[in-house]
Formats: sequence, structure tokens, C-alpha cells
Amino acid sequence: MKLSELGEFGLIDLIKENAVVDPTSLVVGIGDDAAVYVPERGKLELLTTDMLVEKVHFDLTTTSPWQLGYKAVAVNLSDIAAMGGKPCHIVVSLGLPEELPAEFVVNLYKGIKEICREFSVNLVGGDTVSSPLGLVINVTVAGEVEPARLLRRSGAKIGDLVVVTGSLGNSACGLDLLIRRGWEDYEYAWPLVTAHLTPRPQVAVGQNLATRGATSANDISDGLASEANELAKASGFGIKLYSDKIPLSPELIEGAALLGKRPLDYALYGGEDYQLVFTISPKQFACLPQSLGQFIVVGEVTEGEGVTLVEPNGRTKMLAPGGYNHFQ
Amino acid sequence: MKLSELGEFGLIDLIKENAVVDPTSLVVGIGDDAAVYVPERGKLELLTTDMLVEKVHFDLTTTSPWQLGYKAVAVNLSDIAAMGGKPCHIVVSLGLPEELPAEFVVNLYKGIKEICREFSVNLVGGDTVSSPLGLVINVTVAGEVEPARLLRRSGAKIGDLVVVTGSLGNSACGLDLLIRRGWEDYEYAWPLVTAHLTPRPQVAVGQNLATRGATSANDISDGLASEANELAKASGFGIKLYSDKIPLSPELIEGAALLGKRPLDYALYGGEDYQLVFTISPKQFACLPQSLGQFIVVGEVTEGEGVTLVEPNGRTKMLAPGGYNHFQ
Repeated sequence: MKLSELGEFGLIDLIKENAVVDPTSLVVGIGDDAAVYVPERGKLELLTTDMLVEKVHFDLTTTSPWQLGYKAVAVNLSDIAAMGGKPCHIVVSLGLPEELPAEFVVNLYKGIKEICREFSVNLVGGDTVSSPLGLVINVTVAGEVEPARLLRRSGAKIGDLVVVTGSLGNSACGLDLLIRRGWEDYEYAWPLVTAHLTPRPQVAVGQNLATRGATSANDISDGLASEANELAKASGFGIKLYSDKIPLSPELIEGAALLGKRPLDYALYGGEDYQLVFTISPKQFACLPQSLGQFIVVGEVTEGEGVTLVEPNGRTKMLAPGGYNHFQ
Repeated sequence: MKLSELGEFGLIDLIKENAVVDPTSLVVGIGDDAAVYVPERGKLELLTTDMLVEKVHFDLTTTSPWQLGYKAVAVNLSDIAAMGGKPCHIVVSLGLPEELPAEFVVNLYKGIKEICREFSVNLVGGDTVSSPLGLVINVTVAGEVEPARLLRRSGAKIGDLVVVTGSLGNSACGLDLLIRRGWEDYEYAWPLVTAHLTPRPQVAVGQNLATRGATSANDISDGLASEANELAKASGFGIKLYSDKIPLSPELIEGAALLGKRPLDYALYGGEDYQLVFTISPKQFACLPQSLGQFIVVGEVTEGEGVTLVEPNGRTKMLAPGGYNHFQ
């Protein structure tokens, strides 16, 4: 069935199904002029939005609609995680080419609802319009955070450790494998491609960092070099990263070898890992319980400015913020 | 200067200027992973989003970037108005073709900030990405409403009057004049074109309707026929509209004559007026102070279902929801 046969209102009925995961605070969901919900007393409200454009952020030859729906929400939840918050409600705007089969949109929403179910997030509204030139998805998340759990981008102190929550570079290497094609033959390629297509935001970890002493945080959407530069700039200090401490998965090392690339470059400049990078004093770091997640020290906060990479032989080089920068 | 010369981060610095109009509740604005604000105690939170796509919702040959920015926010504020709420914070996602001059984006944000200033709304975040296929704007508004002021789409009762807050059809006629070109020669065309390009959401009026007895409300984005059908369906009753009571401006009558169209059709099926339509008992209607705004009775809530148009000669016809329906 084509979208034009289903019609805008048929589509809305379809979207409504299983859209509410946690009805506790929801007063009005899909179907009125705006969603209405009760904020939790004593909490701060969080708001963030991300737009994904066909051929820029995704290619329909390498992602399924389910994966695309899942990821469009994941990248937004990751921003809430980086603030220490809990995502609560999302609204989704879709610009859809008319020739798109209705089944595509159904599967896109299945992906959206799957990640919403995993993270107890309600789909409370949106906008569905035609977009003759290509598919566009915009997701906005409203979340909440206790004031004590709020993580900012600024606040790092000299002597703090720089810590990441998992392996870096997998997603970017996965993207290159998808573009190259034929990756299905390599066992190690699967986790890399999965990291790219359906990243998992670090929501649970993020909520526990501020009360455990984290002084600043960012999610890694544009590569560690870029994110560390943002933390350094926002806090007014420098950051030193040790190249041999940056966690590279065995799969990344194999994937990069196949592609003739350096695995470390994927970690530093690749992006879309959606791990967190945060700063914390060594004393507080020592108290972080293992049960909270994976924590890998990759560097430290120093005097000065910018981000310096220290290689095992002691050589250093400055890392420009060169993650993915639109319009350059 | 081109966007590619300004760069993503240069652009963000530019967007930040004068983005905060009312700092009272804002904890973190543009420049972190998410905006943070304090909800007002005892209020409900509102969330709504709208996407505008080039060639579908606007044409750069007939709108200036300033007007486009203004309108992209206006249509969202109108949804908050229809819920009886106060808009507080917006996030804006922009998908921009690379060849767009930086000046275009600067002027777009001037329009966005102008309407934000008028309605005391903060620009607290967003996403700026490249969109090779055309310009896309998505705005999400977070607003607040006292529970007693909340307006729903459902709740109309038999015998309620159906009331609109101003002339209808101007915007759609203005669009046709823009498409026809040469409208500048006609004095009456200016307010019509203005109604289309820079609509004013009925925020102040909306906030005062529920406490004055309004039982349901909608904003008129898709034409009165469509919006009245939505109110009728949501409330489970019928609505009778009197064709000779629907307010048509003298300018609309002149503009429609020039275009060889029926002015009433613009009011019923045109859309984008962003006036409110609401239901209220005759007794409560009589108590509505003139100072609140313009209130024109156009019909009443009846038994049955659907929307019936009553003509002066007593003839009736059913009005299908036929506003602008994407994908049909």
C-alpha cells in the first residue's frame, strides 16, 4: 500500500498504537494540538532536538526503516544521557516522499517504538508532511533531571581524569564497511555495523555520574577529538589524551585493517559512537562502582587549552576539533 | 559570505545572540547537549512540533527568509494557543542547502527571534545540518498551562456555540495572490499576503478561554471545515455552521473576485489562518469580555455527527474534513 492510499489520518491512527509506554505523567498524547504532561516535582526539564536528512545522515541502501527509526531516537536520547537526565517524551516530525510504501513508515515507527519501549519513553506527538525531495526525520526529546544529577559540558577541573564509557570508533568503521559493501562475510564486521545502525545511548550511566562526582560530560557524537575539545573549551582548560589508552575493540582493529585505515583515527575523528566522555577527580573515579558500567580513563585535564594527544613514544600533537562539521 | 565559509560553529555563535528573552526559568540555553529549564510549579507542560519543507509549505520566490523564520515559529505557537497555554521555549532544526548565503540564515533567525521577542519565548537549542535537497525547518515548542486553563479538542456539548476569533480565508487567498504574482498593485492584497506570510498566533486569547467556559478548541491551520470536523469527532457530536455568519474580510471578497474564486471556499477549505475555533455555552459566551478579543459566532453544536453547512436559503450540505491533507 502507498502512503497516498493510507492518507495522513490513516497514518496517524497507525502511529498512535502502543505509543504510550509510561502513562504516569501523561495527560494528553497524540491527537490534540499539543501533548500535555505533568512535570515531576523538584526536577528540571530538558529539551533537545536532532534532524536526520537522507543522503547526509543515512542512506536507504544501507539502513532498514526499523534501524533508521531506532537511531533517530537514539541520537536524541544520547543528548539527554549527556545531561544526566531521563528521557520522558518524544515528538517526531517526518518529511516523507510520496512514493514511499506505507510499509516503510510502519517499520520506521516500529523502530521508534522499540527504543521508546526500552527506555520507557512516550511518543506523544509529531508532524507528518510530504517531502518530495527526500526523507527527513526530526526528533525532539523532553526529559527530566534532578538538579543534583545534572551534568554540564563545563566544570572540569585541573587534575580530573578524562573517562569514556566504552569502545570508540566502531560506528564510523561500521559506516565505511556499509559503504564498501560485502561486509556480511566478516564475523567482526557485524558489531561494527550494528554500532553504526542502532547505537545504544548511555542513559543509565549518565544518570549516575553527577552524584558520583563527574564534573563535566558530553556524548560522543562527533568523535573523541571534537568532544574533548568542547569539554576543554567549555571548562577553560586543556585536555591531554593518551593514544594507547583509547579503547579500541578487536573488531575495530580487524575492520580498519580490511579498509586500510588506522583504528585510532576512527576513534578520534569518526563519531556517532554515542558513548559518554566525562571528567572526574581521581579520588572520585576510584569510588565509581563497576556495576554502573564500563569506565576507561583516556586522559586528564591540564592547564592551558585545546586537546593534546600523547603517543607511547612521548611525542605529542594538538588535536583539532575536526569531527564531522556540516558546511565545511 | 557562504554558509561553508561561516562554518557550523560560526553559525551557532551567531544564533546565540539575543536568543534568551525571558531568563527567569532558564538554566542552560544554547551550547550544551540539551536545554535545561525549571517548570513552573503547579503547571502542566506542553509539547508540539511542526516541520516546514521547501516547495511544500513555502516557496523561496514568494517568502523572505525573515518571514519564513517568523512563520515557522508562529504555526507552532498557534498549537500552544489552541491548548490554552503559554509558549516558553523553542528548539529549531534547520536543514540547509550548502549554497545558501549565510545572510539568508541570519535573516531567517532574525524572523525567528522577532516572534520570540513578541511572545516572550526563548530560543534554547536546535540542530543545524546540511540538506542538499532543499530547505527544511522544524520547530518544537515547550509551553506551560495552568490545569484550569487547559483547552482540549474534545469537550463540546450540545447547544454550545461555535465561535472563531477573526476573519477566515485571508491566508489562503494571500497564497493564491502570491502564486499569481502582480498582487502589489492592489491595496487590498497586502493584508491577505501578510496573513499568509506572517500569521499571528492567538496566544493571549487562548489563555483566557477555558476559565471563561470554552469547552473545546482548535487552531485553524487546515480550514474551518476540517477543524470543525475535528472538534465534532473528538466531542462525539455534530456541528452546524451558518455560511452567512462566517467572517469574511472585505479584502478577501475583493481578492477572491480578482482570482475568480468564492471567498467562502477560502474560509472553509483554505487553512493557515491560525485563528482559534472554540465551543462555549450561549450563557458563558454572553459573559466573554470584548476586551479579550474578537469573537464571532459561526454555528452551534448539535446531535448527530459531522459538520453541516446551512445556507441563507435554508439549504444544507455536509462539509467533508477536506482541508489540506498531505499524501492525498
